[in-house]
Amino acid sequence: MSSPVCIVGGTGALGFGLALRLGRSGVAVVIGSRDPGRAQQAADRLRERVPEGTFSGAGNPEAVAEAELVILSVPFRSQSETLTNLKQALRPDQLVIDATVPLAAAVSGKATRTLGVWQGSAAQQAQEMVPDGVSVVSAFHTVSAALLTDLDHDLDEDVLVCGDRRADKTRVIELVDRIGGLRAVDCGPLEMARIVEALTPLLISINVRNKVRAGIKITGLTE
Amino acid sequence: MSSPVCIVGGTGALGFGLALRLGRSGVAVVIGSRDPGRAQQAADRLRERVPEGTFSGAGNPEAVAEAELVILSVPFRSQSETLTNLKQALRPDQLVIDATVPLAAAVSGKATRTLGVWQGSAAQQAQEMVPDGVSVVSAFHTVSAALLTDLDHDLDEDVLVCGDRRADKTRVIELVDRIGGLRAVDCGPLEMARIVEALTPLLISINVRNKVRAGIKITGLTE
Repeated sequence: MSSPVCIVGGTGALGFGLALRLGRSGVAVVIGSRDPGRAQQAADRLRERVPEGTFSGAGNPEAVAEAELVILSVPFRSQSETLTNLKQALRPDQLVIDATVPLAAAVSGKATRTLGVWQGSAAQQAQEMVPDGVSVVSAFHTVSAALLTDLDHDLDEDVLVCGDRRADKTRVIELVDRIGGLRAVDCGPLEMARIVEALTPLLISINVRNKVRAGIKITGLTE
Repeated sequence: MSSPVCIVGGTGALGFGLALRLGRSGVAVVIGSRDPGRAQQAADRLRERVPEGTFSGAGNPEAVAEAELVILSVPFRSQSETLTNLKQALRPDQLVIDATVPLAAAVSGKATRTLGVWQGSAAQQAQEMVPDGVSVVSAFHTVSAALLTDLDHDLDEDVLVCGDRRADKTRVIELVDRIGGLRAVDCGPLEMARIVEALTPLLISINVRNKVRAGIKITGLTE
């Protein structure tokens, strides 16, 4: 992978965990944050955990400028504002991997419930908001941030990938497959994100009941 | 299990597959259908496949009368009408296990899309329609009818169970666990059926792309 992967919201739990795992897999990671200082602090913490990794941090527009793949891992509350602020920074050759989950917690509701998004899903909202030519693929909703962050934990679960163009999904699937223990599963067009985004509150409900960090595996696929 | 399990819609693919597996597990099954003759024919076919099983067939109201547990496995198109017709037959001590999926195919849409149900989910519609005192638990949405019917196939997947009362879910979990290779996972209250019912179109989308019979397994739970 020539250019680094940018993680917008890489100071948050999921983004940080993905950065750790990607960095350990030899992928250079640029952490993006509204606050460049916080992004750099996150990069420092990543370097402590994975000394062999290549990490940097910058404000969101600068971080995005360096990357072909941009993972958007922000609370749903901030997704729209973040994308508005990135309108000038995103270029037509870039691919946004949206991991946003419209949890009702965004409006002080329950984390086991979702909000209805006018476009159908957070990923489809992202697709509507990015500049022309920028593609959006949806992924990483079902992987526990805590398990990603625990580098001693051997992952063994699937990442459900939704997107409208096969070539875009192939790029995302290749990225996912670099992380040991994760398998990417093509779930169809971006509209299927309506369903996949709802798996996060389902897993939260299972977690609460069973005191676990649940994930998803699709059965019946040949390895 | 003292009384038989009734499967309303047991002449359909999912209901028939569940009947096969339950019958083979030593659970007596009564097939319900609008047409008593078709129910009896289904029972005959079940007996051919599983000679050691106990199968009978009857019109829906008569079939329901014999059972404590009633599995509702009908197309979404027929769910409301079926429950209306069962209003006089269902008794307060009975538990309805709803397996209905509101696929858009019910209104000539795609099987990878769902309909919005006013009550939130087909299971919640069922809960609204059953007589007072009858409980509804949601289950069996993610198990392939074809794999259930193929008795040479070793199942190895989860059944996601949603319901408002723990005691009801325990009864359903015990039933699921009688079928070898299926593990029941408590997903929380009945409202979570909104999410679980949408897993059927997700799996259909995965099936189409990969030419498989996909199912779901929750990772991170201790066996």
